[in-house]
Amino acid sequence: MNIEPAELLISGRWLLPTAYQRDAIANGALAVRGDRIVAIGQAADLARQFPQARRLHEEHGLIMPGLINTHTHAPMACFRGLADDLPLMTWLQEHIFPAEACLTPEIVYHSTLLSLAEMIKSGTTSFCDMYLFAKEVARATNESGMRAWLGEVLYDFPSPNYGELENGFAYMQDLFSQYQEHPLITITVGPHAVYTCSPALLQRLGKVAEERNCPFVIHLSENEAEVAICRQRYGLTPVEHLDSLGLLNQRTLAAHCVILSEQEITTLATRQVKVSHCSESNMKLASGEPPAVKLLEAGITLGLGTDGSASNNDVDMFGEMNTVAMLHKVINMDATAMSAEATLQAATLGGAACLGAEVDIGSLAVGKKADLIVLDLNQPHLTPMYNIPSHLVYAARGADVIHSIINGRLVMRHRTLLTLNENAILEKMREIGQTIMSTRNH
Amino acid sequence: MNIEPAELLISGRWLLPTAYQRDAIANGALAVRGDRIVAIGQAADLARQFPQARRLHEEHGLIMPGLINTHTHAPMACFRGLADDLPLMTWLQEHIFPAEACLTPEIVYHSTLLSLAEMIKSGTTSFCDMYLFAKEVARATNESGMRAWLGEVLYDFPSPNYGELENGFAYMQDLFSQYQEHPLITITVGPHAVYTCSPALLQRLGKVAEERNCPFVIHLSENEAEVAICRQRYGLTPVEHLDSLGLLNQRTLAAHCVILSEQEITTLATRQVKVSHCSESNMKLASGEPPAVKLLEAGITLGLGTDGSASNNDVDMFGEMNTVAMLHKVINMDATAMSAEATLQAATLGGAACLGAEVDIGSLAVGKKADLIVLDLNQPHLTPMYNIPSHLVYAARGADVIHSIINGRLVMRHRTLLTLNENAILEKMREIGQTIMSTRNH
Repeated sequence: MNIEPAELLISGRWLLPTAYQRDAIANGALAVRGDRIVAIGQAADLARQFPQARRLHEEHGLIMPGLINTHTHAPMACFRGLADDLPLMTWLQEHIFPAEACLTPEIVYHSTLLSLAEMIKSGTTSFCDMYLFAKEVARATNESGMRAWLGEVLYDFPSPNYGELENGFAYMQDLFSQYQEHPLITITVGPHAVYTCSPALLQRLGKVAEERNCPFVIHLSENEAEVAICRQRYGLTPVEHLDSLGLLNQRTLAAHCVILSEQEITTLATRQVKVSHCSESNMKLASGEPPAVKLLEAGITLGLGTDGSASNNDVDMFGEMNTVAMLHKVINMDATAMSAEATLQAATLGGAACLGAEVDIGSLAVGKKADLIVLDLNQPHLTPMYNIPSHLVYAARGADVIHSIINGRLVMRHRTLLTLNENAILEKMREIGQTIMSTRNH
Repeated sequence: MNIEPAELLISGRWLLPTAYQRDAIANGALAVRGDRIVAIGQAADLARQFPQARRLHEEHGLIMPGLINTHTHAPMACFRGLADDLPLMTWLQEHIFPAEACLTPEIVYHSTLLSLAEMIKSGTTSFCDMYLFAKEVARATNESGMRAWLGEVLYDFPSPNYGELENGFAYMQDLFSQYQEHPLITITVGPHAVYTCSPALLQRLGKVAEERNCPFVIHLSENEAEVAICRQRYGLTPVEHLDSLGLLNQRTLAAHCVILSEQEITTLATRQVKVSHCSESNMKLASGEPPAVKLLEAGITLGLGTDGSASNNDVDMFGEMNTVAMLHKVINMDATAMSAEATLQAATLGGAACLGAEVDIGSLAVGKKADLIVLDLNQPHLTPMYNIPSHLVYAARGADVIHSIINGRLVMRHRTLLTLNENAILEKMREIGQTIMSTRNH
């Protein structure tokens, strides 16, 4: 029976391998060997099947797939709360762009570590990032043991990182070379948006994504201002513009997609574009209400993202799920819209599919990567328990996650990070915060 | 200098006595004697002034007023997650009312204990409750040491608690007698709503509220269905109907107030009605978007409420604040709407004013009651710190609260409840959850 020894056997009160209550296993367990899941079933059965395995048992634990954040800017943690209650363009042009001009590789590295700590501590096991100084993002991510898709943001104007655009291409190619064989980090192509990138730049980056067969990640149709600029310049909406350039395809991961006509939704569906919705960020910046229900009805692959901590102001996917499920009910005036299961699906397998990784992550199944989290259900706000997806979306919080395993490796145990030095990160970030404040005050 | 000895001196990295960043005190402290705050200032100064005081110091602590939940149904914790993703009337009539028919005093008592545990652990120090078996709600609340305004819900049809309506009045009078002198519990009058209470019942209860000079708490204009029923019966909207009965006055605390015309907003303002908005519940049940910004512009006293755990699905006021600040930005398409400070104000001093208790609670000031919480800022999602209200509304969670003091009494220390036996409550609630499930399956 026991052909290969399992290295780790994780068991708890419940195991929810997918987003669906019908799949829940009471007193479930999961065996991991190396980076893969090798068995799923009743704890008692697996304990007999893998007697040598190291055990991780939580009496009141819920084992579930790690959450997937499909759009964030991890280093922006250093700007959390620096400028709030402002419209997107004012926020971006008068606060964020000037603050970003003062960024250094060191700030980006430490801020990324902070976001990684926050993500792991709130149940995220994979994220898709686009930002400046992406080599620093990758360096920090590599240390954390998290799974990531990440890339350097490119745009027409000089970057605080690479300076002139041509250097940006060299920087990106370096990243591709450096992480070609990395088990956890995949490099992506990251044009900022249609209003900051010329058609030539977009097409050149589209070609790179095609050659590398990697995600082409772009902010798209985030608000009315973007649509107006695009119409003015090209006589087309952002979606139409990208389509006219041949850049809507199965590699395109479009973040936001707030302002969309019915026709554009059909276009996105036809071109097999993946969409990352960032509802909290869109709400906070008053960008608009992303049409999640319509996208799902059109059969579009939908993931959820927090966006950066400067516009959310956290990277907690449990908070994001809560908001998503509630927002789409009220904007559609339909309490059956965006059910707990649909929301959890978007935050797990939907996110995996956005990154072309649904074969490996997004649910717990034999043969898939061991990316999973354990929540402590022995808490007032999670008691009693009638329906697991309901609790995960409407009541649970990031702080309920006690263990995290990524690629078979325990990265958090009893809320203690095992790959990162949390206190050192917090201490360093307080210093960086003071530096950023003093820069702004001069 | 030191006229009277302080009993407890609480100090931390920051003290935020109000909802406003400008009032923040770095390295602040607060001295408590009995149930009152006797001094606020720099920790170093207060330590000299009160050398004998017992100390509670948190190096990375933020001291702030406890949150005030102005509308909840604490015992509904036992129904959390029992029925989700359903419209209000289906949810109420097909799921909640039948489940409530099986309630017992014991279930209500234990469910209230559970809600109390959850509220304390997420930073709430006062709440306003209306539900069945209110004596049990009061009994549990008394044990917890929480401050509460609570009452028995009355309506025309027989109640699972008191049976015929006339018994309801006797039950209510008992409550008034029993808690007349209680330092923390105030009994309120609680007609359910205009569609479940006859004009005669509403007026009779209005008279009780007048005699007792206590809040008259009612669900009002929660959704279109309520408005339609009221129009059909009386030819008036719920607000017009209550006004025609002379029941809109400074004692009226109207929960929800989602569907309101400009004229009705003016009426509520003129009559000095207080409003409790329950945005998360309204979103989840797709009842509509409460017009918080318009109410504040009209000068109406606004508090926030979670509603019960069956429609939220938690009683976490930090989560509620987060949703409120984001929702009202996007529905008004104005990122400056419902700022962090305005939101925090509604959850603190606004809530206090809803209950006529702004002299005693809702902010930290010398002479006010010592109702306060301490958060641990030494966490990834709260680092760095530029603006305290921003962090509290956009990034903090209930789980960040480590200590809670109500009426001068320490009720939670390092997240351990001191007045309640959390594990016993959880164990009991798991049993009750199984009972409720088996009742529904038969």
